[in-house]
Amino acid sequence: MPFYRTPSHISAFNAKFEAQKIAFGPISFQVAHCLLKFDVLAQIDSAAERGITAAELSQSTPLSEYALGVLLDMGLSMGLVWQHESGYVLDKTGHFLLHDDMAAINLNFVQDVCYQGLFSLDTALLEGKAAGLKVFGDWDTIYPALKDLPPKAKQSWFAFDHYYSDHAFPQLLPLVFAHKPSHLVDIGGNTGKWALSCCDYDANIEVTIMDYPGQLEVATQNAIARGVAARVHTFATDLLDDTLPFVDGADTYWMSQFLDCFSTSQILSILQRTAKAMTPNSQLFIVETFWDRQPSAASAYCVNATSLYFSAMANGNSRMYHSKDLLALLHQAGLYVDEDTDNLGLGHTLLRCKLKPKFNGNH
Amino acid sequence: MPFYRTPSHISAFNAKFEAQKIAFGPISFQVAHCLLKFDVLAQIDSAAERGITAAELSQSTPLSEYALGVLLDMGLSMGLVWQHESGYVLDKTGHFLLHDDMAAINLNFVQDVCYQGLFSLDTALLEGKAAGLKVFGDWDTIYPALKDLPPKAKQSWFAFDHYYSDHAFPQLLPLVFAHKPSHLVDIGGNTGKWALSCCDYDANIEVTIMDYPGQLEVATQNAIARGVAARVHTFATDLLDDTLPFVDGADTYWMSQFLDCFSTSQILSILQRTAKAMTPNSQLFIVETFWDRQPSAASAYCVNATSLYFSAMANGNSRMYHSKDLLALLHQAGLYVDEDTDNLGLGHTLLRCKLKPKFNGNH
Repeated sequence: MPFYRTPSHISAFNAKFEAQKIAFGPISFQVAHCLLKFDVLAQIDSAAERGITAAELSQSTPLSEYALGVLLDMGLSMGLVWQHESGYVLDKTGHFLLHDDMAAINLNFVQDVCYQGLFSLDTALLEGKAAGLKVFGDWDTIYPALKDLPPKAKQSWFAFDHYYSDHAFPQLLPLVFAHKPSHLVDIGGNTGKWALSCCDYDANIEVTIMDYPGQLEVATQNAIARGVAARVHTFATDLLDDTLPFVDGADTYWMSQFLDCFSTSQILSILQRTAKAMTPNSQLFIVETFWDRQPSAASAYCVNATSLYFSAMANGNSRMYHSKDLLALLHQAGLYVDEDTDNLGLGHTLLRCKLKPKFNGNH
Repeated sequence: MPFYRTPSHISAFNAKFEAQKIAFGPISFQVAHCLLKFDVLAQIDSAAERGITAAELSQSTPLSEYALGVLLDMGLSMGLVWQHESGYVLDKTGHFLLHDDMAAINLNFVQDVCYQGLFSLDTALLEGKAAGLKVFGDWDTIYPALKDLPPKAKQSWFAFDHYYSDHAFPQLLPLVFAHKPSHLVDIGGNTGKWALSCCDYDANIEVTIMDYPGQLEVATQNAIARGVAARVHTFATDLLDDTLPFVDGADTYWMSQFLDCFSTSQILSILQRTAKAMTPNSQLFIVETFWDRQPSAASAYCVNATSLYFSAMANGNSRMYHSKDLLALLHQAGLYVDEDTDNLGLGHTLLRCKLKPKFNGNH
């Protein structure tokens, strides 16, 4: 889908309104958060077409009539509710905020992980560092900090991370196993979600997870609990250190939502080392959400928004890429794309890559 | 304009997108803030239809190509810019964000005054206290804190406050002076902006400002500087203390964007004391921005959003009211509305009130 190649079809009046919505975005966000947190939208939904008044809601929620009044009047302006006599009735945008689990996952992720640190987005972008992370402690990147985040931040981070992979894995497994992997090296495999899915899916697959030792400990525990420890191997490393050894000569390498955690120069280094480890028969699968490959402008919006999480909170230098940027890096690392499948899971793309044939100088 | 009395005319697809925009609202807000702060939108505007690339912008702004990339790709999704070949061109929403001074005033107010404290909106609403104010210090309300706020917060607060009054005063003055006030009591007159405007407008008017002593000191200095000190009098008081005396028997009382700083019970008390001070010939003018009296859904959105500033940051119990709520309080205080004029300044309403006639029991 070619996005943003023409000016928006929007009236001047609506564009001016959009600008105000952006200017008051943090307010509408916090209003939505409160209406969800205190079950106000859920109770309005239950009241259906009859509606429910602020006075009634003050009996069944912990909020005063004043608090309900300011929230719900803003909710009217945001299209979350509409008013039938003195009762509030759920409107379409409110319906999706309440019932679309992706909206809830995103909202909690923004509130619990990103909101406070985003205040330092300007500094983060000037310095190329995750300046927002200081609200949680003294770290350069969020990855080693994950286990020490406040409970809600931790929960919302993993809910966000797993939501997107949980939706993609069922569609990815048959596509990958159609190519008969026997030894899959899961680069940046974290706590083993994909590795265990592979073991469940195929009785013969052997998996090696390459990641930090801390992640691998959890992965090993998970493999034991699942009864597949004999087929889940670990290879502790720091993937940013290009002096460390790599798992060589496997038939299949795998990177799922992994490269978006790195800058372009880091990606190139990782791809070059992977290419060096591959044989002419090896295949490398890459799963990413590219903003230009999304099925709709709404999903492109979400993917582009997520980039700023990387800038402010995660590492200060990575993002959700445009597909052409990653394709250029693959090419530079000596790889080519053999299969390219969009619209898997929630806007995921699966790339199957191979080593480019090496011509000698005589041709 | 009757707002929100029917469900929104919006497709399910767009409603789902709206929900995502709300969920990522703090991100789009910070992106807009950075694009304005680092002059990116201004430079894109200057490049006009030709557009300007991220590489070019990295030469003329303090931002890296990476930083510009994440900001501008999100800017594409937000409708701020569109892409012409590899250049970015300003789109309509970006145009208004850049050129509509109301959007800039609102955005800076939200960033510098509200953003951090809004994280505690849930607590503020549960407790009925301005819980967000703790990011600036230990105060119950923002009013005594104003002079001690960080410079940017202070600047953005006053810019916001003055922007709305500056637009309203020129239209209000002739309407008020058509009723020939001779002594105007400016209740909550703060640093004297309205009082001085009156003195400029009419050579004979005498004004008495009722407010906290701190505000009155500044007002007096301002009156001296303007050469009207002989006609600007002060009456130091705490308007929330109903045991303190009031300026009695003036022909004109004035409350401009004042009652929205109080809860309904506080408003009733202030109106009752004002009514008691009035004679049958006195008039009380009230200027407010009622959300139901706005000329458009966009301005109602802004007014309703502003209520949450009062909840989280200002005092925890006031708001931008619905006109019927204030009219009920006026009635209860023994007043009636003699003139009711909407659409002054930026969505302001001017009410001229008089004491209700007192019938004796024989009629």
